[in-house]
Formats: sequence, C-alpha cells, structure tokens
Amino acid sequence: MLIVFCIFAELKDVSLADDIKNKLNYYMAKELKELTPRSVSYSQWYNDLVTKAELAENSAVRGCMVIKPYGYAIWEKMQRNLDDMFKETGHVNAYFPLFIPKSFLSKEADHVEGFAKECAVVTHYRLKNNPDGTGVVVDPEAKLEEELIVRPTSETIIWNTYKGWIQSWRDLPILCNQWANVVRWEMRTRMFLRTAEFLWQEGHTAHATQEEAIEESIKMINVYSDFAENFMAVPVVKGVKSANERFAGAVETYTIEAMMQDGKALQSGTSHFLGQNFAKAFDVTFMNKEGRPEFVWATSWGVSTRLMGALIMTHSDDNGLVLPPKLAPIQVVIIPIHRNDEQLSQINARVAEITAELKKYGISVKYDNGDNKKPGWKFAEYELKGVPVRLVMGGRDLENNTIEVFRRDTLTKETISQDGIAEYVKELLDKIQENIFKKAYDMRESTTKTVDTWEEFKEKIEEGGFILAHWDGTPETEEYIKDQTKATIRCIPLDGDKTPGVCMVTGKPSAQRVLFARAY
Amino acid sequence: MLIVFCIFAELKDVSLADDIKNKLNYYMAKELKELTPRSVSYSQWYNDLVTKAELAENSAVRGCMVIKPYGYAIWEKMQRNLDDMFKETGHVNAYFPLFIPKSFLSKEADHVEGFAKECAVVTHYRLKNNPDGTGVVVDPEAKLEEELIVRPTSETIIWNTYKGWIQSWRDLPILCNQWANVVRWEMRTRMFLRTAEFLWQEGHTAHATQEEAIEESIKMINVYSDFAENFMAVPVVKGVKSANERFAGAVETYTIEAMMQDGKALQSGTSHFLGQNFAKAFDVTFMNKEGRPEFVWATSWGVSTRLMGALIMTHSDDNGLVLPPKLAPIQVVIIPIHRNDEQLSQINARVAEITAELKKYGISVKYDNGDNKKPGWKFAEYELKGVPVRLVMGGRDLENNTIEVFRRDTLTKETISQDGIAEYVKELLDKIQENIFKKAYDMRESTTKTVDTWEEFKEKIEEGGFILAHWDGTPETEEYIKDQTKATIRCIPLDGDKTPGVCMVTGKPSAQRVLFARAY
Repeated sequence: MLIVFCIFAELKDVSLADDIKNKLNYYMAKELKELTPRSVSYSQWYNDLVTKAELAENSAVRGCMVIKPYGYAIWEKMQRNLDDMFKETGHVNAYFPLFIPKSFLSKEADHVEGFAKECAVVTHYRLKNNPDGTGVVVDPEAKLEEELIVRPTSETIIWNTYKGWIQSWRDLPILCNQWANVVRWEMRTRMFLRTAEFLWQEGHTAHATQEEAIEESIKMINVYSDFAENFMAVPVVKGVKSANERFAGAVETYTIEAMMQDGKALQSGTSHFLGQNFAKAFDVTFMNKEGRPEFVWATSWGVSTRLMGALIMTHSDDNGLVLPPKLAPIQVVIIPIHRNDEQLSQINARVAEITAELKKYGISVKYDNGDNKKPGWKFAEYELKGVPVRLVMGGRDLENNTIEVFRRDTLTKETISQDGIAEYVKELLDKIQENIFKKAYDMRESTTKTVDTWEEFKEKIEEGGFILAHWDGTPETEEYIKDQTKATIRCIPLDGDKTPGVCMVTGKPSAQRVLFARAY
Repeated sequence: MLIVFCIFAELKDVSLADDIKNKLNYYMAKELKELTPRSVSYSQWYNDLVTKAELAENSAVRGCMVIKPYGYAIWEKMQRNLDDMFKETGHVNAYFPLFIPKSFLSKEADHVEGFAKECAVVTHYRLKNNPDGTGVVVDPEAKLEEELIVRPTSETIIWNTYKGWIQSWRDLPILCNQWANVVRWEMRTRMFLRTAEFLWQEGHTAHATQEEAIEESIKMINVYSDFAENFMAVPVVKGVKSANERFAGAVETYTIEAMMQDGKALQSGTSHFLGQNFAKAFDVTFMNKEGRPEFVWATSWGVSTRLMGALIMTHSDDNGLVLPPKLAPIQVVIIPIHRNDEQLSQINARVAEITAELKKYGISVKYDNGDNKKPGWKFAEYELKGVPVRLVMGGRDLENNTIEVFRRDTLTKETISQDGIAEYVKELLDKIQENIFKKAYDMRESTTKTVDTWEEFKEKIEEGGFILAHWDGTPETEEYIKDQTKATIRCIPLDGDKTPGVCMVTGKPSAQRVLFARAY
C-alpha cells in the first residue's frame, strides 16, 4: 500500500514535504530489502541477510560460496587484526602446499580416523578434447600414481616439512601460521557456517618441551578470545573440549564458544595441544641440550570465515547487519538531503571539512551524495549493511550548524552541533562497540542457566542458551545426553565456578560444572 | 684451509685480534653458506640462493613448493603494496571458488584450446579405510557426477558469477580482485618461476564499453610497471603480446618484460583486454542507457609469486640476495661487537636509542645481539638474506661516538658519527633503492641491441639480452624465428621508437621494431 502510494507520488512528482518523501522512500526500500523476521525463521533471516547485505552467495559449485566484496572487506579487517596479534606474539607467516599425498593422512591414526574422510580427491592431472568433439574429458592416461587430497587441514604436510627444519633444540620453537583455503566435503552447507571450501588461518608450532607447547596453545586461545570480545564484540566462554569433541589427533583442544541470538552455541576458534602425536607419526626429533634425541611437541590453532557467521548472528537485527565499529569497512556514512544543486554544493563543501576531520581520527567515512538514489533509500541500504553511524545533513542543518546522528545499534537519532563532531563520532563509535558487546553479553548471561537435575535439563534445553550442569566425565554419559536432547558439551570452562558435585544423569562425582548447548 | 685454521683457533681459544677473529668467522660462515657462483651455473646459483636464503623449498608434492617464512615475508610486502595500489585505483577484493566445473572450461573456445589442459582434476569426494587394514583408499562410490578442476585461472567461474550481478549499466563497472592460489600441472618446475601451485592475484573487471575496458587493461599494466620499477627496482618494458603469445581468450594482452642477469627475459605481469568473449560464453548482458541489451566488456590481470623470481634474479649476487629497501622485511640489521657483558650492555643501551630513532622514520630494524653466533657469522648470514644496511657497533665506536655502516648493494662500508644516524640511514635506503634500479637498468640497456639482419640476429641472440628488430607481423615468421633461435617476441613495445621498416627474415613491411629474447 505504502509502495503504491509512494510510486504514485514519484511518478506524478506530487509535492510532498521532504520529510514525508524520505520516509516513503525509506519504507519502499525497506520492503525491497526486507528480511524474513528472526521471529518467523531465524535460519531464513540469516540466509536473507547474507544475501541481501551482499556478504556472500552460493556458487555454481556445490557447497562453495562466493564471498562478495562487502563480505570480503569485513573478513579482510578480521585478517589484518588477527595477523597483527599473531605477529605481536612472535609468529611468522609461511605457505604450505594445497595438496596432501593420500598416504600422509593415515600416518597419524586418530587423525585419519576422526577427520579426513570427506575430502576432495585429485586423481588426474590432465584433460583432453572429447573425441566426439564436445568439450573436454579427463585424460585416462594422466592418472596420478598416488592420489592427492585437497588439504582439509595441514598438520600432516607441515609436520612432514618440519622434519627437515628441525635438528637441534636451537631450531625450536617454530612458530608458523598460514592463511589459506581448505576443503571439507560437507553434505549440508550454510554460507560462512559450514561450506565445502572455506578460508582460514592455521598456526602450527613446534616446541622442545611439553610445558612450552601447552603454554602456546593456551596463549593462542587467549588471543582468539581477546579478538572475539574486543574486535568482534562477541562474548565467548573459554574452555577445554571433552574427549568426544576433541580435534582428531589432539591431546587437548581449547575452544571459545559463543552464544547466538537463537540460543544455539557456535564454536568460534580452537587451539590444540597435539602432544608428540604428529612428531611420532612423521618421525620429527631434535637433539636436546643434553645431546639426546627427543620427539618434538606440537600445537595447532585456527579460526575461519565461520567467524563471519558468529559476527552476523550475534549482533544483527531484522533491519540487517549490525557491525562492531572496529570491523566495519565503512564506519560512518554521510548522506546529504538537498533541494537543489546549489544547496548540494554547499553541503558538499561542509561535508568535505567534516570528512577530513573524521579521517584525522582514523575513521573510515563514505560520503554518498550520488543522485541515483533518494536519501530514504540510502538510509535503508546502509542500515542493511550495518554501517555503525549515519550522519545526515540537510538545508536546515546548514543554516543551524547542526547535523543528524543516527546509531545503527540502537536505531536512535539526535541532532547535534557540527562543532566537535569528529570527536563526538569517535567517542560514539567506542560507545557502540561497547554497547553491542554488552547487549550480547547480557543476552548470553540471561540465557545461561545452572541446572542440577536431568528433568530440569531436558526442560531448559528446549529454551535454548547455555546450561551449566554436572557431568561424570564419561563419553557414555555425554553420548546419552546428546542422543536424548541434541545438546553437546561445548566445553569444560577454564574460568568460573569449580565446585565439584554429582552428575545430573548418573549421580557419579563431577569435578566441576560443564557447559552444554545445542550448537551449530 | 681457512676453515681449518679458524676452527683450530676457536677450539684452542687462541688469542686473536677481534678483527681477525671476525674475518675468520665471516669466511667460515661464507663457506658454509656458499652459493654456486653465477659464472659457473646461473641456474644452480638460483636454486642455491632460494634454498640457502630460506626463501622456499621443494615439498613432498611434485611441483609444489613450501614458501618459508623469510620468503613469505617478502611476498607479504609485495602483496600489501600491490593491494594498496589496486584499492587506490578503485578495486575491491572478493573471493571465488577454488573449483571450476569441468564444463565451464570449454565454454570459451580459445580459452580451453590454449589453456586449461594440464590441471588438477577432482573426481571423488571421499576416502575410506582400506579393507586390507592399511591406510585409506578412494571410495569408488563417492564419484562426482561432473569432475571439478582446481582453478588454473578464474575467468570462467567469475563470469558465470557476474551473470547474476549484472542487469543494467548501473551495475557497471565491476572492479574485483582476488588473492588466491591456482594450479597448473607443469611438467618442469622451478621454485617461484614455474610451480604447479602458485599464489597470485587476479583482477576481473566488467565494463559497459569497449573503450572503458581497454582503458582499464592499460591502467593495470601501468600499475604493474609502476610497482615493478618503484618497489621491486626492476626495470620493465611495457608492450603488447603478439597473437601467438596472447592469453587464451584475450583480444589483446599487455605485458611487462624484465631482463634477468643471465640475459633471459622474464614475463612479470600481464593485463588482458578480453573483449566480449567471456560475456558471450557465459551469456552476460546488460541493459544499456538506451534500454537495449549488450554483451559486457571484460579485462583480467594478474601477477604471481613469479615476481619473487624476478626480484631474486635481477639484483642478487654471489654473496646472496640483494633486496630493494622497499620490499626488505628487515631494512637494517644492527650487530654489536663486544669484549664482555659490561661492554655489551653499554652497546645495548646506545643501540636502543638508535633503534627508536630509526623506527620513527618507519624503518624496520633488527638488533641481533644473540650470543649463539659470532659477529662474522652474522655478517655472512645477513648478506645472504639481502638486508640492505648493516650497522655495527663495537667498543671503539662507543668511545668515539661512531658506527660502521655497510651497504649490501655495493658491499662497501664506512665509519660515521652516530649523530643524525637515523636520517643518514633513511637517505641511504633511498639511495640503495635508486642504485639497484639504476644498476639493473644499465645492465638491461647495455644488453639491448638493435639488429637489422637475420644473420646478425642469430649471432647476437647467443649473447643474451633483448634484441629490437623488425618483424612482418605474421605468426609464421614468429614461429620460424623461435624454431631457429629459441627466441620469442616478448612484446611489441608501447613506448620508444615507432619507425617502420622491413622484416629481418622476410623483407616484408614492419610497423615498428619488436622486442625479442630467450625467456623463462
């Protein structure tokens, strides 16, 4: 109805007050960009948002997505900040082959058992023209002697390489990271959350002692937690995985677990203490200070484009993305509202000054004075894209030395003086960063329950959120709980209450409460 | 002999003057790190250098290399600077799938004919435990309906994607770049120069007009030329490829060609005007301003880790790498020479001040006061690694307020005052950047010959270097010249002498001289 009226008004150029025109354009654009509300279908809302905010789309290749420029710009900001943090903690980047000889995968028994079955297998290295004249076919004569696997993770090829790098304790530690693509042939995929190909970083470190390797794996889970909370504004619970949920080949897996708005947990980063498992599988020893050979100790740790999913599902709303200022490709958008070209050029001149001031504070600004879209349309567009702050300048603002400031996180606006606007926006961005963290933190806290009985557990798990409960530490009980409720142990928290108790299912002793949830 | 003496002196702790000790250590280290001299075998020198300077090494996977941290750090600096240049010219990054459905490759006839035969083919998506209990085998039941090709280049998958992005002229231009790995199954590989898997960037742009697309492809070859000359200090000739050497599927290929120290050319970057070939193959049209559908115009452009090969082979010498300061991961190394711990702590204090000053100028500094290696050993190590400037501070320097400055490019040293050292070094780095460019430029100019007869051509081509000669413009003559001399047309230069003449082989008319060389 609104659209019809609005189109009518557009076509006839009916003289409407600017304000009304704008509102109509806004609602018109909103209808076009409309997302399925979260209350109707959280999962459809997510897919709509990823597509309409132009973050990613499905490709012609099953399970592989295209990361579109706006989505990739957010990922680049994540990469840059994480990379800085890795370098500050002494790591260097390197690059290892995309392909892994098939035989490597079976060298570490647990690794192959728990991991590497669903993967892309390269069997041939040449195509030839189809004898029937249509297209190309695989050349049967170009069959590889040993098949190559597209890396699902690189422990095997890297430890095979480290063998040549390590002779003595002087060669240790090795602290390498790589930014790479990996492939895991998932049957049910969702953009960013679970795709056949995804982008990630994988750190692989080698140490002379067990103690040092454990310290490294804890250091890196702390880096991830720091990044999640302080850049992504996503509160996480740090903990240790149970044996069932551990990485295949690891002695201990550290994890950070986030809570999405729909009450499901999302594993957001893991760091593994690998013991000497891969060193033994690939025969990597070093001469210790006493001149005796010892197997090397290992860690690996990674985060992936899955973090994009965590970011989207933690903060966004029915109007679109909500981005933390520290990761927003555009932190501030400025939109003019003008009656004529002369007024626009006055606004342009004033905005140029404000933009320069904002840039001095290191704020990324986009001034959208394009005349192909109406202001209301632009409002809806940048709301959908999650730009944290919108500044609007109209004719009256020029006269009054004012400007309208809109916050994406609270959807509120106010009109303030142009004096000191850059400083104001700078502080506002900090406030938004804090506010969305706090909002997510409060949501998580209010949906985290402490439960003591199995009956209560089964009831509360239906409400979503985290549950802290006692567990007897056995894989059997864990399996039973999963079978009955689809809830898994997200982690054994490192921080918080460590009081022992009794398992809610078996009544056997429990060392501390562990964190349960249904999960992505 | 030297080594024997030196080891003897080390073992017996014979009292040698510091200076002599240092020299001995230097020569000892040099022998261990010795490269095959270029005069003996340029190709062995290259392999030695890549390995011993720890840039890369061959991996367990045929034709795939491991890029080691030091090599990767140089590549990262290249990436960062190129990426900035792409963004300054209006491009954005995105990411497209690693895999390409086999049928896509044959959609553009020239593309598949000239290109995509030697590639990695994924035929299966699952492994299973070998029934005989040993390792894993490919699961024959997990055969893909259509094979997937590991991208050798992404025109096909990207144009298939652009089809969904482009409806009207308002959606154009699209200016995307991706940083990615690609695979071409090369039979004869050499680290960085030609490997089965390599890292690169590929820009893919879509335009409404032919004119705009041609402008874009020329703009990007200019960006590459700018990067090669001003960051890599590698002089290049810009030009157009002959039809024989054109990218498969392109209407025109622009190239930058560099000259290596052994007189062979290295193609260092290409930018293609693709006409409407890929738009037609993937049916990508747009409504023009007049409301009529038209096929979209395309370009693509790329540089790869091959640039590392160009960088190494242009500047380095028998002592190791020579790096342009703008791409050196470590621009300045500082090494103390001390008699005792007290003197070392005095040097440490002074060096801390100098380091802080250098960093203020944005210079990357490494202070190597580790006591596990002797200064002479360190000298040889950082020479091998191509660190542009070495500062050495000893006891006498402390007393005299002096410091020794060593230039990697000229292998010369001088002792200067510590006052204003940061500014001095800053200017010195600029000088080194200029000097190595000039050296490479002079080398290329002195080995570029203008030739008018076929007899002279056959003689001069044996000497290496570029030859400017007239050619009748036919593929047949080009083939004949290649058959007879292994020389190819590197490009038809865009700049320089455009005087017409007659072909040195056939005597037919020639529009201008073209650039010949034997090439990597």
